[in-house]
Amino acid sequence: MGFRFSIVLNLLGQLKDRFSVYQQVRSLEEKLAIACSVEGVTGVEMVFPDELVDIELARDLLAKHNLHLSSVNVNLKGDPRWHQGALTASDRATRAEAVRWIVRGMEIAADLGSNLVTMCPLADGHDYPFEIDFNTPWNHFIQGIQSAADSHPEVRLSLEYKASEPRAQVIIGTVGKTLYACDQIDRTNVGVTLDTGHALFAGEHAAQSAALLSQARRLFLVHGNDNYRNWDWDMVPGSVNFWDFLESTFYLMRDYDGWIAFDVSPTRLDPTQVMQSSVRMFRVAEALISQVGPDEIARSIAQGPMASMGLFLTFLEGRLQLGQIAG
Amino acid sequence: MGFRFSIVLNLLGQLKDRFSVYQQVRSLEEKLAIACSVEGVTGVEMVFPDELVDIELARDLLAKHNLHLSSVNVNLKGDPRWHQGALTASDRATRAEAVRWIVRGMEIAADLGSNLVTMCPLADGHDYPFEIDFNTPWNHFIQGIQSAADSHPEVRLSLEYKASEPRAQVIIGTVGKTLYACDQIDRTNVGVTLDTGHALFAGEHAAQSAALLSQARRLFLVHGNDNYRNWDWDMVPGSVNFWDFLESTFYLMRDYDGWIAFDVSPTRLDPTQVMQSSVRMFRVAEALISQVGPDEIARSIAQGPMASMGLFLTFLEGRLQLGQIAG
Amino acid sequence: MGFRFSIVLNLLGQLKDRFSVYQQVRSLEEKLAIACSVEGVTGVEMVFPDELVDIELARDLLAKHNLHLSSVNVNLKGDPRWHQGALTASDRATRAEAVRWIVRGMEIAADLGSNLVTMCPLADGHDYPFEIDFNTPWNHFIQGIQSAADSHPEVRLSLEYKASEPRAQVIIGTVGKTLYACDQIDRTNVGVTLDTGHALFAGEHAAQSAALLSQARRLFLVHGNDNYRNWDWDMVPGSVNFWDFLESTFYLMRDYDGWIAFDVSPTRLDPTQVMQSSVRMFRVAEALISQVGPDEIARSIAQGPMASMGLFLTFLEGRLQLGQIAG
Amino acid sequence: MGFRFSIVLNLLGQLKDRFSVYQQVRSLEEKLAIACSVEGVTGVEMVFPDELVDIELARDLLAKHNLHLSSVNVNLKGDPRWHQGALTASDRATRAEAVRWIVRGMEIAADLGSNLVTMCPLADGHDYPFEIDFNTPWNHFIQGIQSAADSHPEVRLSLEYKASEPRAQVIIGTVGKTLYACDQIDRTNVGVTLDTGHALFAGEHAAQSAALLSQARRLFLVHGNDNYRNWDWDMVPGSVNFWDFLESTFYLMRDYDGWIAFDVSPTRLDPTQVMQSSVRMFRVAEALISQVGPDEIARSIAQGPMASMGLFLTFLEGRLQLGQIAG
Repeated sequence: MGFRFSIVLNLLGQLKDRFSVYQQVRSLEEKLAIACSVEGVTGVEMVFPDELVDIELARDLLAKHNLHLSSVNVNLKGDPRWHQGALTASDRATRAEAVRWIVRGMEIAADLGSNLVTMCPLADGHDYPFEIDFNTPWNHFIQGIQSAADSHPEVRLSLEYKASEPRAQVIIGTVGKTLYACDQIDRTNVGVTLDTGHALFAGEHAAQSAALLSQARRLFLVHGNDNYRNWDWDMVPGSVNFWDFLESTFYLMRDYDGWIAFDVSPTRLDPTQVMQSSVRMFRVAEALISQVGPDEIARSIAQGPMASMGLFLTFLEGRLQLGQIAG
Repeated sequence: MGFRFSIVLNLLGQLKDRFSVYQQVRSLEEKLAIACSVEGVTGVEMVFPDELVDIELARDLLAKHNLHLSSVNVNLKGDPRWHQGALTASDRATRAEAVRWIVRGMEIAADLGSNLVTMCPLADGHDYPFEIDFNTPWNHFIQGIQSAADSHPEVRLSLEYKASEPRAQVIIGTVGKTLYACDQIDRTNVGVTLDTGHALFAGEHAAQSAALLSQARRLFLVHGNDNYRNWDWDMVPGSVNFWDFLESTFYLMRDYDGWIAFDVSPTRLDPTQVMQSSVRMFRVAEALISQVGPDEIARSIAQGPMASMGLFLTFLEGRLQLGQIAG
Repeated sequence: MGFRFSIVLNLLGQLKDRFSVYQQVRSLEEKLAIACSVEGVTGVEMVFPDELVDIELARDLLAKHNLHLSSVNVNLKGDPRWHQGALTASDRATRAEAVRWIVRGMEIAADLGSNLVTMCPLADGHDYPFEIDFNTPWNHFIQGIQSAADSHPEVRLSLEYKASEPRAQVIIGTVGKTLYACDQIDRTNVGVTLDTGHALFAGEHAAQSAALLSQARRLFLVHGNDNYRNWDWDMVPGSVNFWDFLESTFYLMRDYDGWIAFDVSPTRLDPTQVMQSSVRMFRVAEALISQVGPDEIARSIAQGPMASMGLFLTFLEGRLQLGQIAG
Repeated sequence: MGFRFSIVLNLLGQLKDRFSVYQQVRSLEEKLAIACSVEGVTGVEMVFPDELVDIELARDLLAKHNLHLSSVNVNLKGDPRWHQGALTASDRATRAEAVRWIVRGMEIAADLGSNLVTMCPLADGHDYPFEIDFNTPWNHFIQGIQSAADSHPEVRLSLEYKASEPRAQVIIGTVGKTLYACDQIDRTNVGVTLDTGHALFAGEHAAQSAALLSQARRLFLVHGNDNYRNWDWDMVPGSVNFWDFLESTFYLMRDYDGWIAFDVSPTRLDPTQVMQSSVRMFRVAEALISQVGPDEIARSIAQGPMASMGLFLTFLEGRLQLGQIAG
C-alpha cells in the first residue's frame, strides 16, 4: 500500500538562518495550496502555535485542500520565553508553561483528527562547559513529559531527538538517550520521532535507529530528509546517502505504517519542486526495494554485505542492460 | 581523598595500527614495572586473555609491584574468532564462547580481588549498508550480557560504549544506548564504563554523561583520555579539551569513587612520561576545582556560563597576578 | 605590547538563527557604547552595508567612543540578491555588483583610517550533488577578487574562509584552498582572515594555520572565537579548546601584530559579559605564555609533546602549590 | 572508452588495525593472482619497498598475470625509521633517506613501465598541541619533494593528501593545501593523488576536488573508495555516498584518463568480491551517466539542483517503470 506522505508546513513559508531571510511570507492557505499541489502528498504537519491559532480556520482549510493533519508540531524553541530552556528551564513557571503548550497541542491534535504530537526540545540543552547542572534538567524533562502525556492518554506524544542546533548540546541527542528517556517516562503514549537526518547527524544509521525504535514499539513518526552527516541540512531524502536511504526504506516498509513527513528546507529553491522531488525519491526507493524483493534482500543480508550489494548491483546492471559480471 | 589511578596495562606493551608497529614487546613483569614507576598510580587494568593466562603469576606480580587489579578488561574483539561478531555473531557457538570469556573474566576479577570486569564490544557492529539485520543482534547482545551477569552476581560487569573502530558502527555507541541496554538487561551488577574520549568521540560532553550515569547508579568505571572529538586518539586526559576535562573532574569528584584507568596510547612516545603526564593533569584539575571551590562552582553554574567562566578566570588572573577586570 | 582587541560590531545587535530571534535591535550608537564599555577593547569591525550607510555618522561615533575601525566586513551573503551566489553568481551583473560592494568597502576602510577589508564569501558555494559546475565559479571568484584588489592597491583585502554555513560547501573552506586562491589571485594586497573557530571547524589546528599564513605573509586579520570543532558556534575564545588556544596565542604573539576581532555570538547571554570574557581569556593566555616563557616553550617543543606539556604542568603545579612530580 | 582499473596490491595481503590481524599472509604471486581474477582490472599499484624488493620478479609476475603497473606507492609511514617523521623529520639523515626512497620508487616506476609514483606522507604530521614547530616541517616537506622530483623529471610524482591517521594531523590534509604545496614545489612533474575517500574525510566533495585538480593539471591519480565522511573506512566506491560518487564519475569521465586504483580494504570480507564489487559499482555509475547523458547533465546543472536531480529521477522512474510525476 505504500507510505503516506506529509509536509512540515512551516517549511513552505518564510525561512531564515543566521545570515539571511528566504522565500516570501505565505498565509496558511497559500502554504496548504502548495502542499496539495505536490502529487502524492496527503497530509501536513502543522506547527503550534504559529499555524494553529485559529482551529476552525485550520479545520476548514485542511478540508478544502483535502489534506489530513498528520501531526501537530509543538514549537518549544522559537519564542523568546524558551531561550533559557523550556521543559528544563530553571524557572518553575516557564516549565509549567512548556507543559501547557504540549497539552494544548495534544488537544488540537485530537480535535483535528490526528492523535499525534511531535516535539523537538531544541531550547533544552546547553552551550558552554559549566553552563548547567546536568542532573536537575534531566529530571525536569522526564517529569514534564509525564505530565503532558498523562493529560491525554489517548493522544500520542512523540519526542524528536537532535544532537544540536541552536544549542551545542540538546538534552535528547540520540536514539539511545531518547529510548532511555522513554523508559524513565514510562508511558505507552510516549514515543519517538525519527528524523532520518537527525539520526545521520547523530552518527547513527537511520535504518538501525528505525529498527530499534520499532522493536521497542516507540516509532511514532518519521521525518524524512538527508544531509552530509555533519549538520541538519534538511535536504531531499536520499539525495546524499542513497544506500542508507534504501536501507531505512526497507525497514520502514516492513515495520512502520505511519506518516513520512518531509522536513526538507527549500531556502533558495522552489518549495514545490523540493517537496515533489522528495516524494519521487521515496517512490524510486520503494520500487527498487519491491522489485529487488524484500525477501531476497533479507536472505542476502544473512550472507554478508557483498551479497546484498551484489543483489542490488545485479538488479541495476539488468536495468542498465550492462553485460553482467558474476559477483 | 582523591582519585585512584590505574593504567590499562596492554598500552605499556607493543602497539600497532593499520600502518605501523610501535614500542617493543614487553613481558607482564616489564609492563608492571613501568606502571609502578608512575607516581600516583596504584592499580592496573589487565586484559583477558592476553595478560591473564597464568593467574598465579599475575597475583604474584601484582603483589610484588604493590599494584591493585582495578579491573579485568575482557577482549572480545582482537581474536580472529570474533571477526564476524562476538556476542552478536550469527553462529550460536561463537556467541556462547563470548559469554564464557566474560564469565571467565568475572571469575578472575573475583579471584584477584577486583570485582569489576569491563568489556567494549568492538567486534559487534557493522560497516556497510544492508550488512546486518538490526533486530536479532540487539537481542543477542542483551541476552548474552544477562547470561554473563547472572553467572556471578557479586561481580560487576561494566559495558564500555564506543561509536566506532574497528567497525564503522559499534552496537553500543553512546551513553544513551548503553543505558537503554542496561534497562533491558535489568541486572544490578551491570553498569557502564565511561571512557571520556569515547564520550567526546560520540559527540557527548563527558561531564554530562558522567552525571547521567551516576544518577542511574550505573557508573562503574572511568577510562581517562582525550581526543579531538573526531576519533578515539587516546591522548593524555585534558590535553585537548581542558574545560571539558575540568567539568567532568568536577562531577567525578562529587559523584564517583571508583578507579580512573588511563586508556592513553603512547605509540611514538615514552610510556612512562605519557602516564605520568596523565596523573599530573588530573592532579592539576583536582587542585583547580578544589581551590576555586566546588560549592562556589555549583553556585556560579546556577548563574549561567559567563558566571562560571568568570569564576575560573578570576582564579587564574589571581594566580597569574594579572590586574583584574571586573567580569 | 600585546594584542589589539576589536569586536565584530553586528554581534552586539539583534541576532537570529533558523528558529529564534535574540537580543533587541540596537542602534549603531548603542552598539558602540557596549563595545567601548568592554575593558581592553579599542576597535570595532563594522559591517558594510548595514552599519556603514552614513559614513560621517560612523566617523563621528567612532571618535566619540574613542574606538578605531579595525576593519570593514563586507557582507556578501545576507541580502537576497546574493542567494544564488555573489562573486560566483551565474548572472554577470550580480558578480559585478559583488565586486562593487567590495570596492566600496575598501573606499570606506581607507576613508575611516583602517586599510583593511575582510569578506567571507558565504553565498558562494553549493548544497546538493550536481548543483553547480565546479570550474566556472572558481574562475569567477579569482577574477572578482583580482578586480576588487586592483581598485585600491593600498587597501588590504582579506579573505575569510569557512567550511560551510549557510551553504553546505563554501567556495573557500580551508586555509589551504585560500592560500591556493591567493596564489592564483596573485596580488600583494590580498590576504587571509584567520577565524580561529573556522579553522577548528575545518579540521585544522588554528596555530598551524596561523603559522602557515604568516609564513606566506598573508595573515591580515584574526577573528577570535572557539567551538566544538563540529560547527561555527562562535563561543568565547579558549572556552573549549584551551591548549589549542594557548598554542595559537603563542604563534600570534610571535608572528602577528594586527587586530584580534572577537567574532563571538552572545545570543542568549549578556553581550558585554561575553566580550569581556573574551578579553580576559586572551589576557590569561598571554600571561601564561609570557610567564612560562616563549623561548622555553620553543625549546621544549623541539623535545617532543611530553616535554612541552610538562613545562606547562610544572608551571601550573607551581601556581597551584602542588607537590611536584618529576615528569 | 572507459576507465582503467587497478588494485592497491597490499590490500590483497594480510591487514591489521589497532586490535586485530585479518586475512592470511599472501605472496606477491598470490596477490597478483587475485588481482587478475577480478574482471575489469588491468593494473596494480605496488608498494615500495615491501612488494618491490626484487624488481625482476615483479616484472615477470606482472607479465605472467597480464597486469600493468599502474603506479608505485612509496610507503613513508610504516617502517619504524619514519615514526618521528619522514620528509619532515628533525633529523637530517632521516629526511635524506625519505627522499632516497621516493627517488628509488621513481626509478622502479620508470623501469617497470609506469611513470607514476604516489606517496601519502602519513608520518609527517603531529598529534598534540605544542608538539612541533609549524614552520620548519613545511619547508622541509617542500624541499624534499623538490629534490625527489628533480631526480627524474620524466617520472610523475603524485602527492596523496589525507586529513589524519595515524597522525591526528597530517602535513597535507586537504586538496587546497596540497595544491598550495604544489605551487611552492613548482615542478610540472609533481601532482596530486585524489583518494576520493580522503576527500570526503577532509570534508570535501570529491567531484569538486577532482575538478579543481584537473583544472590545475595536477590530477595524476585517483584512488577509489568510500566512507561515512568521518574516517578513512576504505569501503567499496559508491557504497555509501552514491550521488557524490556519480558526480565525481561524471567529472572523471570528462577530465581524466588515468588509472582508478581501488584503495578498498577487505579485512573481514573476501578480497576478490570486494574488488569485483568496486569494478561493478564504477560500471553502473558510468552506464548511468552515459545513458542519462553527460550533455543533458551539464545542461541541467545550469538550471539548479532540482533540475539535475529530476533528470536522474526521471531516468530511474523509467527504468523502474514507475508512473511518472512531473518534477
